[in-house]
Amino acid sequence: MNAADALLKTLVDNGLEVVFANPGTSEMHLVAAIDHYPQIRPVLGLFEGVVTGAADGYARMSGKAAANLLHLGPGLGNGFANIHNAKKARSPMINIVGDHATYHLKYDAPLTSDLDGLAKSSSDWVERVKSPDELAEGGSRAWQAAHNFPGKIATLIVPADCAWNETDKTGEILNSKGPEDFDDALLKEAYKVLTDKSKSMLFLGGEFLDEESLNMATKIATKTGARLATETFRKRQRRGQGIPVVEPLPYFAEMAEEFLAGTESIVFIGSKPPVSFFAYPDKRSYLSPENSKLVQLATFEQDGKKALQSLCEMLEAREISKELLPSTTVEAPLTGELDPSHVGSLIGELLPEEAIVSDEAATSGFAVYPNTWNSKPHDWLSLTGGSIGQGLPLATGAAIACPDRPVVCLHGDGGAMYTVQSIWTQARENLNVTNIIFSNRSYAILKIELERVGALQTGDRAQSLFSLENPEINWTSLGKSLGAESFTTLTIEDFRRVFSSAVKEPGPSLIEVRF
Amino acid sequence: MNAADALLKTLVDNGLEVVFANPGTSEMHLVAAIDHYPQIRPVLGLFEGVVTGAADGYARMSGKAAANLLHLGPGLGNGFANIHNAKKARSPMINIVGDHATYHLKYDAPLTSDLDGLAKSSSDWVERVKSPDELAEGGSRAWQAAHNFPGKIATLIVPADCAWNETDKTGEILNSKGPEDFDDALLKEAYKVLTDKSKSMLFLGGEFLDEESLNMATKIATKTGARLATETFRKRQRRGQGIPVVEPLPYFAEMAEEFLAGTESIVFIGSKPPVSFFAYPDKRSYLSPENSKLVQLATFEQDGKKALQSLCEMLEAREISKELLPSTTVEAPLTGELDPSHVGSLIGELLPEEAIVSDEAATSGFAVYPNTWNSKPHDWLSLTGGSIGQGLPLATGAAIACPDRPVVCLHGDGGAMYTVQSIWTQARENLNVTNIIFSNRSYAILKIELERVGALQTGDRAQSLFSLENPEINWTSLGKSLGAESFTTLTIEDFRRVFSSAVKEPGPSLIEVRF
Repeated sequence: MNAADALLKTLVDNGLEVVFANPGTSEMHLVAAIDHYPQIRPVLGLFEGVVTGAADGYARMSGKAAANLLHLGPGLGNGFANIHNAKKARSPMINIVGDHATYHLKYDAPLTSDLDGLAKSSSDWVERVKSPDELAEGGSRAWQAAHNFPGKIATLIVPADCAWNETDKTGEILNSKGPEDFDDALLKEAYKVLTDKSKSMLFLGGEFLDEESLNMATKIATKTGARLATETFRKRQRRGQGIPVVEPLPYFAEMAEEFLAGTESIVFIGSKPPVSFFAYPDKRSYLSPENSKLVQLATFEQDGKKALQSLCEMLEAREISKELLPSTTVEAPLTGELDPSHVGSLIGELLPEEAIVSDEAATSGFAVYPNTWNSKPHDWLSLTGGSIGQGLPLATGAAIACPDRPVVCLHGDGGAMYTVQSIWTQARENLNVTNIIFSNRSYAILKIELERVGALQTGDRAQSLFSLENPEINWTSLGKSLGAESFTTLTIEDFRRVFSSAVKEPGPSLIEVRF
Repeated sequence: MNAADALLKTLVDNGLEVVFANPGTSEMHLVAAIDHYPQIRPVLGLFEGVVTGAADGYARMSGKAAANLLHLGPGLGNGFANIHNAKKARSPMINIVGDHATYHLKYDAPLTSDLDGLAKSSSDWVERVKSPDELAEGGSRAWQAAHNFPGKIATLIVPADCAWNETDKTGEILNSKGPEDFDDALLKEAYKVLTDKSKSMLFLGGEFLDEESLNMATKIATKTGARLATETFRKRQRRGQGIPVVEPLPYFAEMAEEFLAGTESIVFIGSKPPVSFFAYPDKRSYLSPENSKLVQLATFEQDGKKALQSLCEMLEAREISKELLPSTTVEAPLTGELDPSHVGSLIGELLPEEAIVSDEAATSGFAVYPNTWNSKPHDWLSLTGGSIGQGLPLATGAAIACPDRPVVCLHGDGGAMYTVQSIWTQARENLNVTNIIFSNRSYAILKIELERVGALQTGDRAQSLFSLENPEINWTSLGKSLGAESFTTLTIEDFRRVFSSAVKEPGPSLIEVRF
């Protein structure tokens, strides 16, 4: 067989099921090999930011890597921002980047670039394949590297001749590293601050926002009176009726400091001491109160679940206080004109069971999150790396991973324009994604930030860089052009009807909420 | 003043007129400073690939750099592919990339990435500013580096506090390097091969496809019988009535080898020996005939114009043969159904005087180029780095540089989807760009390449990765959603009417040509 076949056989043996792709000439033999493995679902994205963002969504929901098939340096470059977001989520991801044939590279053909430098700057693990015999083994190592707990970005650079030439070497199944052990001394320290009557907080993140971890953390909180909190942007959080409420740290630093004010000790599990998203003149970078005691019991790579179990046992924590479960939701209004706060309570009411929410609503979505604590049980995915243009692809990949679950994507208009091509893939793959576009025709967050950084004296020309007003994007026309049933809603009745139907139907829809 | 102001003052003193931008919080003070300099036109792109591609188009038409305002690593990453294309075009470009404040970087906030590594992999020149006093001087050096002949990619990394703090230091105007001298021995060698009765070729590229260079080259060809040729993808080529015809090397290697067959010597000016765009099993990388004599008289960085002048003088070459000027164009049909070959002759007839053509039509555009030799004089810009998604932003930037000239963008549908957000910027800036979208609903070139690489046994699943058929993109709906008058043309009469009107009117239009 040729080496491309050997690579795909090896990856399939390891568990590969989905290839997100925008291939070119240098990946042709890899494309051809896909047809020999019915286990693989190939999914085309019309831009590489869709490909890498979808792979992240797929990984967050399936727990394993897809393979992204990318075309030389520019293909990887186009995928950079959503690889960055995936890296911050610690999602497992494999990028297979085709390159010029080994002997062709020196001629500096037009598509030649510093691919190795780019790969290093974007990935946790990089390997350049040197011969067809090495390709499949490189695939084994890439799979292994991607699945080292909790997940890494592995990039395999594949010169075209290393894929098209014959080989008899396939790769093995190599074990990935599981979660590392935490330090027992820190467990004792955590026990101490949780029981010493200080105002303590249990701060969860990373992998430890699943129902089991949340329940354990809530037992600890019930027993000790510790507050529960989590990261501003979470990889995946289980939420809804009967599931403990763990509030994220607010985005803006002042609000985050207020949220943390008075806290005397914080135990971190699967997270680290929170820092300001950006620096601001004359403001601190660390957000936790200055003299608070910080115990990093389990890092992102360590066994946070075992840490929670151990604490539960040491504390004999077995009960969950009802006060830590969601309380009754604000009732959604039945009629009238729609405004953003209504969207929150409406989605709170209408969110279907086992929905997956991909949240990049930015300023407009602040009303949705608090209103969905008492919705039917669901998973919530957020913008982990801060690079806008993740929400639509993330929703796309999550829907590929979970074909039986409805996906709801909450998106600001500015960010949605970054990777709007995602809607086409949702249509092609007939994915049940309901995309809510909050159309305020501005990068609203930047208008807020402009004041916060103290750069106040701006005029129209500077302000124009935050405005999406001229021209107004026609979202229903845009959504339709890419194959999604599209609506713009002006009343509460409209929204209720359109949303309820959209989450039930196969295929994507787009609902513009204007304000 | 703050350092952001000092930087912009310095850049304006150097000649800066346009900032293409998609800024964020870390660039706020730079945004605010724009308002203090009425000399600067700020242009918003809804995705960074639009920003960097537009800067390339602006540079090709204005001869100087714009400044791109980009948001940390992911912002630069999103711009990577069109920076790559600009680098291959050797266009001057300045990227000003905001970063976290110097003291904030160590906290690994969500938007932190290996920005320095990414900048190195994408740029010819990189500098990280260390203090507010250094910022403006860094700007001077960036301007200088970007304008070293013929043009470089300069990236200045600006931590937020190095922009917001006060300084009294502005930067100077530093001279950039002009074209380097060529080697006199090579001039003698070039003279020899052009006069020794061998079948010789004069191969022009880079900066030397302007009218003056083309005329000199054609005088040499008239005198010596040398053939004229140029690169497959040109930064900017002057063409049209009365302007010498210099044929580009065909894209596909077999056709390129046929084009060059029998050539015994090639003199390169502003270019280098051509190589195959990709490697293919059992095919050569170099395209020139194996025993041909290659004389690299002037490299990209050298003074090709002086080389042409010197050759003209040595050869006493003063006449231009009429045979080397465009011959009468094929007449465009008047009525009937439109097919791609008609579009060629129709644009040939209708292209307005001093049009700028941005060409990323790929397989569909092959009929337009040969039909426009005898159009009214115009400039032709092509996809220099092979990374698709350049055509629309390039057209956008060219229109910013030349507000009085009509711009025509020829684009394949696959590539157009990469940076379709460009149309919004064209609408916002009221740019006279006529976008022709050749809609064949496939990555047609990849279907051809699949055969050429010998990877023949593919089935439906692999083939689906080259198809844009499901769902079909509705281009008129898409164009309208982003603010462009949009049409889909089915007859020759329609096309003639719509195109003629579009190139005269301000603001963008989109014409879908389906086949």
